[in-house]
Amino acid sequence: MPLTPDQLAEIEALRATPRQTLRAVSDGAEAHLYRAHPVLDHGFIRVIDYMGNDDAIVQAARVSYGAGTRKVNDDAGLIRYLMRHWHSTPFEMCEIKLHVKLPVFVARQWIRHRTANVNEYSARYSIMDREFYIPQADHLAAQSTQNHQGRGAVLQGDEAARVLDILKSDAARSYDHYEQMLSQDGQQGLARELARMNLPANIYTQWYWKVDLHNLFHFLRLRADAHAQYEIRVYAEAIARVVADWVPVAHAAFEDYRMGGTTLSARAIAVLKRRLAGEPVTQEDSGMSKGEWREFVEVWG
Amino acid sequence: MPLTPDQLAEIEALRATPRQTLRAVSDGAEAHLYRAHPVLDHGFIRVIDYMGNDDAIVQAARVSYGAGTRKVNDDAGLIRYLMRHWHSTPFEMCEIKLHVKLPVFVARQWIRHRTANVNEYSARYSIMDREFYIPQADHLAAQSTQNHQGRGAVLQGDEAARVLDILKSDAARSYDHYEQMLSQDGQQGLARELARMNLPANIYTQWYWKVDLHNLFHFLRLRADAHAQYEIRVYAEAIARVVADWVPVAHAAFEDYRMGGTTLSARAIAVLKRRLAGEPVTQEDSGMSKGEWREFVEVWG
Amino acid sequence: MPLTPDQLAEIEALRATPRQTLRAVSDGAEAHLYRAHPVLDHGFIRVIDYMGNDDAIVQAARVSYGAGTRKVNDDAGLIRYLMRHWHSTPFEMCEIKLHVKLPVFVARQWIRHRTANVNEYSARYSIMDREFYIPQADHLAAQSTQNHQGRGAVLQGDEAARVLDILKSDAARSYDHYEQMLSQDGQQGLARELARMNLPANIYTQWYWKVDLHNLFHFLRLRADAHAQYEIRVYAEAIARVVADWVPVAHAAFEDYRMGGTTLSARAIAVLKRRLAGEPVTQEDSGMSKGEWREFVEVWG
Amino acid sequence: MPLTPDQLAEIEALRATPRQTLRAVSDGAEAHLYRAHPVLDHGFIRVIDYMGNDDAIVQAARVSYGAGTRKVNDDAGLIRYLMRHWHSTPFEMCEIKLHVKLPVFVARQWIRHRTANVNEYSARYSIMDREFYIPQADHLAAQSTQNHQGRGAVLQGDEAARVLDILKSDAARSYDHYEQMLSQDGQQGLARELARMNLPANIYTQWYWKVDLHNLFHFLRLRADAHAQYEIRVYAEAIARVVADWVPVAHAAFEDYRMGGTTLSARAIAVLKRRLAGEPVTQEDSGMSKGEWREFVEVWG
Repeated sequence: MPLTPDQLAEIEALRATPRQTLRAVSDGAEAHLYRAHPVLDHGFIRVIDYMGNDDAIVQAARVSYGAGTRKVNDDAGLIRYLMRHWHSTPFEMCEIKLHVKLPVFVARQWIRHRTANVNEYSARYSIMDREFYIPQADHLAAQSTQNHQGRGAVLQGDEAARVLDILKSDAARSYDHYEQMLSQDGQQGLARELARMNLPANIYTQWYWKVDLHNLFHFLRLRADAHAQYEIRVYAEAIARVVADWVPVAHAAFEDYRMGGTTLSARAIAVLKRRLAGEPVTQEDSGMSKGEWREFVEVWG
Repeated sequence: MPLTPDQLAEIEALRATPRQTLRAVSDGAEAHLYRAHPVLDHGFIRVIDYMGNDDAIVQAARVSYGAGTRKVNDDAGLIRYLMRHWHSTPFEMCEIKLHVKLPVFVARQWIRHRTANVNEYSARYSIMDREFYIPQADHLAAQSTQNHQGRGAVLQGDEAARVLDILKSDAARSYDHYEQMLSQDGQQGLARELARMNLPANIYTQWYWKVDLHNLFHFLRLRADAHAQYEIRVYAEAIARVVADWVPVAHAAFEDYRMGGTTLSARAIAVLKRRLAGEPVTQEDSGMSKGEWREFVEVWG
Repeated sequence: MPLTPDQLAEIEALRATPRQTLRAVSDGAEAHLYRAHPVLDHGFIRVIDYMGNDDAIVQAARVSYGAGTRKVNDDAGLIRYLMRHWHSTPFEMCEIKLHVKLPVFVARQWIRHRTANVNEYSARYSIMDREFYIPQADHLAAQSTQNHQGRGAVLQGDEAARVLDILKSDAARSYDHYEQMLSQDGQQGLARELARMNLPANIYTQWYWKVDLHNLFHFLRLRADAHAQYEIRVYAEAIARVVADWVPVAHAAFEDYRMGGTTLSARAIAVLKRRLAGEPVTQEDSGMSKGEWREFVEVWG
Repeated sequence: MPLTPDQLAEIEALRATPRQTLRAVSDGAEAHLYRAHPVLDHGFIRVIDYMGNDDAIVQAARVSYGAGTRKVNDDAGLIRYLMRHWHSTPFEMCEIKLHVKLPVFVARQWIRHRTANVNEYSARYSIMDREFYIPQADHLAAQSTQNHQGRGAVLQGDEAARVLDILKSDAARSYDHYEQMLSQDGQQGLARELARMNLPANIYTQWYWKVDLHNLFHFLRLRADAHAQYEIRVYAEAIARVVADWVPVAHAAFEDYRMGGTTLSARAIAVLKRRLAGEPVTQEDSGMSKGEWREFVEVWG
């Protein structure tokens, strides 16, 4: 369980005391505030704060004074238009702040998205908790034989057991040694900033992560994608569900144009036009490499 | 007056309908929401939304679960510590969204601050309003004789009158011609995206501008500074007053460490240490250029 | 003519003195260095410096120690793979620095691309040159009747003449007045930072603009696009020609996947699949709005 | 030794083949190109490419056409002026690309500097090398008793030996297990993206890191500072030595105004002024907290 009873009590205390505000409110986001959505074995995402809602996107796009008098379907049409034409700045006018608990190797991928604000728990200043990500049996996958950075079939039998045993025992031993090195019982105690170097990449860390909606959509497009590593994808999917409640109209446009959409190269357009004209096309006369063709066929058959 | 009665009515309507929220609230910021603070002759700043307050800075710095149990003076001490040691990320956890009406030449300086989100009124899509910045008599300054990018004494008599007359009549004529070029009365009407090129840099534009508190402090340090051009400085000052109400503890630390503080070079430290030891120091044996020495003496006598 | 004889002489002097370097070199980029490519009536782009070439993209993607031993077609395949899969960081490893002279209203669009470094000629510090963009007759377009931010047919006859006359005479008068306000002949002389406010948006400014290749491609995709305003599009097109010489393999991938490619929404994919299966589809049963359908039909018929 | 003979041979081959260029050249930077500067036990920094030199800073600040005719001491004065007045954009006109080999826990601090371009060796795609950072005896420090994120005295005797033994044996065992999990000898072989989670934070990774000079100075100011963790500080110091050769004038200004300089709060200015006037000041009547006062006294006695 990712949270202690004290932490849960703190969260419920925060949820028990609504305040008045004149700001734009999203009822969908309010329902999520502070509560932890579990991810992996010990991780979570929690919404700490948000700014704006679907209306705020429209209001910024129009640089308007108030809420305006347009009809709801006009607003949805405008949001779809902005998404379709890559007008990103109105989506930047919404912002969300999350508290995330995640394994270090996931954090290392995540941080590559630079247009965000981050405050991470400091292993120089504080002692890390004894919590490690251990994959469930059905996520313990073999190296893909086709894709250098992908997974193949799930490990079986003895091999799976041996891997799990290694991961668990190495994590436990590393943490025991971390504690022993820090210990001041009859010792000086190694500096925290040094002792942490013994901890493996499946230890959990946590951070506050704040990002605008445009950059969050970019993150989700890359990390909720089928090619992303499973362990970061589940975080992206959990966040996507929150976003769907926070800004439902923008999220629907994102689903249609980005997650459910695709991009075609000039070569791919030409192939599809030939097919639409009834002409059969093979990889050899498509102008595409084998890799491109395989990806093309995945979508278009 | 910068706002029309309709716009004022829209604003008051927004202020008349408080909503409930579970988010962090800043009473000081709530008092400002939507209302226009006049700047220059036709400009304003308005707070459209905000995220976070002083507590949110502390909470992010501690990566904590709830509001915590520290005492208020601990929090103020932590905020001062963060500011003193250039720990900028906790300040990035607060965000503000402003609606600003400003002359184009001010907008051109402002936009150089890249770490912000902007939606500007589009002169490709819409017709600009007939509003121009005309300086008040006491801000109609001569070129500085010492500083290539500064102002000297206020213009007097005929020269002042002539300058004001030029600014007013050129603005009026440019706008008349803008309208005539756009007009479709018996004409095709020039494209808006072309007609706008006739408008001078003192015409007002407007935008939504959203920025985090760290980057806003950086903006204020540079633009509320005595060396900034008057016309952008008054915007920075108006924003600084809002920030003082929104996050009073962080703003006080900013005032002490940034606005009221100074930086010393290694050479300046050496000079001050010699002076503290009772030794008189001249520019010649200070190691500083004349310019540096002049700036040093302005602070230290 | 955009450059003076003195400026041309300075440029040729720079080109006359090659130096030795151990860095990666692009012969295609070397051929462009310092020389001005004219754009519009008084503008230009000039390559001032560049970092990297096609090999540098590959080398960074592989985090390799030297030039490697891969074959050229492997490298091209890798670059195409990176482009297809939105792996942007290897393209960020190339950088280009341009000197650009451009009308202020173009500069105002351009600067919205924030991930770049800019040093602009300062109208606070210096006096602006008397150079204004006046459109050629065949670019003097009417407002589009369909698109709020687009152009329609070219203006004809009296209207065209009247518009040109306004643009020319207003520019001349504004500049005359600018000079008169600055003048210190028997006057104090208005501060430059104030006098500039009288200058219209078609005056030329200039800047040094430095950007990495990934962000440059993003700029080109948006600004070399048919929907971009003509006056910025011609700059993007001039830059694209330089890029094609600098990094020919990366540029070819960009042309195929971005400029010549398209994106499809989930709805559009569904429509194309129905069409490929021989089913006729109308806007009404496509799930698309009229606007989306019109854009879809432009590509797919 | 951080590099293999093959890698060293590749590097010397690159250095053996100078090319001609018309670009700005820095002889100081050329001398460093490709060669590895060792850092820690297995790490290094290598200059892969650079753009610009001291002249390029001046040229961008002046938005000039050629090399100009100013004297060298004018240029140095301008660079010092720009540094003193926080005019950062001319420094952004220089860029450097480094290849860095560093422990993962150092990489995690380093990556927090977001305004840079990074390509890191992928542990999803490739197998990590068996190289771990093991501190030298004189850097094996105890936790500071005063500073939560600092080091105290060096560990002694048995404790030092035990810590070193733990770090070495845990690294070796973790890597052995990593290899066993990956192994396909009679196994499916765990996916690389999963197996890496067993590796501790002192394993070495490597990346290409590209940054402009302004942001590099900011990095150096924070990371070459006495409060930075030793293991990142040595990287910053190695880079600073390269920068001193690449842009000697800018680096000297940076040393004077940033590394050797200090910032004073309004309260600290007031205290210094009272002292200069001969008045003794204590912490109690300084307005400063004990922490601030301690830091103040460190500089000023």
